[in-house]
Amino acid sequence: MKRLALGAIALAAAVTTPAQQLKPEDQIKLRQSAYTLMNYNFGSLSNMAQEKKPYNKDEAIRNADFVAMLSSVPKGFFGDDTDHGHTRAKPEIWKSRADFDSKMDKMTTETNKLPQVARTGDFAALKKQVADTGAACKACHDDYRLKEFPDRK
Amino acid sequence: MKRLALGAIALAAAVTTPAQQLKPEDQIKLRQSAYTLMNYNFGSLSNMAQEKKPYNKDEAIRNADFVAMLSSVPKGFFGDDTDHGHTRAKPEIWKSRADFDSKMDKMTTETNKLPQVARTGDFAALKKQVADTGAACKACHDDYRLKEFPDRK
Repeated sequence: MKRLALGAIALAAAVTTPAQQLKPEDQIKLRQSAYTLMNYNFGSLSNMAQEKKPYNKDEAIRNADFVAMLSSVPKGFFGDDTDHGHTRAKPEIWKSRADFDSKMDKMTTETNKLPQVARTGDFAALKKQVADTGAACKACHDDYRLKEFPDRK
Repeated sequence: MKRLALGAIALAAAVTTPAQQLKPEDQIKLRQSAYTLMNYNFGSLSNMAQEKKPYNKDEAIRNADFVAMLSSVPKGFFGDDTDHGHTRAKPEIWKSRADFDSKMDKMTTETNKLPQVARTGDFAALKKQVADTGAACKACHDDYRLKEFPDRK
């Protein structure tokens, strides 16, 4: 049942109120906050999967729940005028929006598999799902994220 | 069942790995990211409760789930040497740690009631729980948060 409930949460979260009313700098801050917490939790999962830190099932579940829940947040906060300031977002996002959205959706799909895989306690399966999720993250980063924060306003 | 599952998530999240190994600036970034997303979601709930925006049960549930899940994050990231830099944390946190922790726990207790109250669809109950949660947030802010970001390193 936990699995089902988590699915429901992820789905609910995906139906994000369009946040275009928010100021661009607030949208940037919100998407970066989600990425920061996703990165922290996915980093922990990834270190377990790569055996750089000891595998702990409860911690893996917690990390997976956080990543899954937060993964739906960023997409709603790439509104107009959020392509400059303190952000690594490339202008290509707004030129190739359909492709960007599809890569974002792929990432969300993969992250949403993590909670149930983590709950099975099957380490090989977790390893595979972490790799698939990491690949989905990377696909978007490769095309749409600058390597460094730019010196721009 | 959803309610129970959410409780389990919140509990799991509360058992946070001590994050003292992280660099102070990373701890600050993580706690601020959690606050940013909590503030966004609690703001939405609070606006519904105050009838500043239309009440929407699904949105209230989503907001409540986010706030509850994120509320356990900050406490683990007020480690040594995280009292300076880009933070509004007052030095009093480290001088009155037991009181700070107890106010933090009170906030977590109140936020963890939000998901189930939001699911009842009882607007009066939601209004009360939002007020109680807001009061718990404020108690900590009043004592331990600067009004503005300081001009310090």
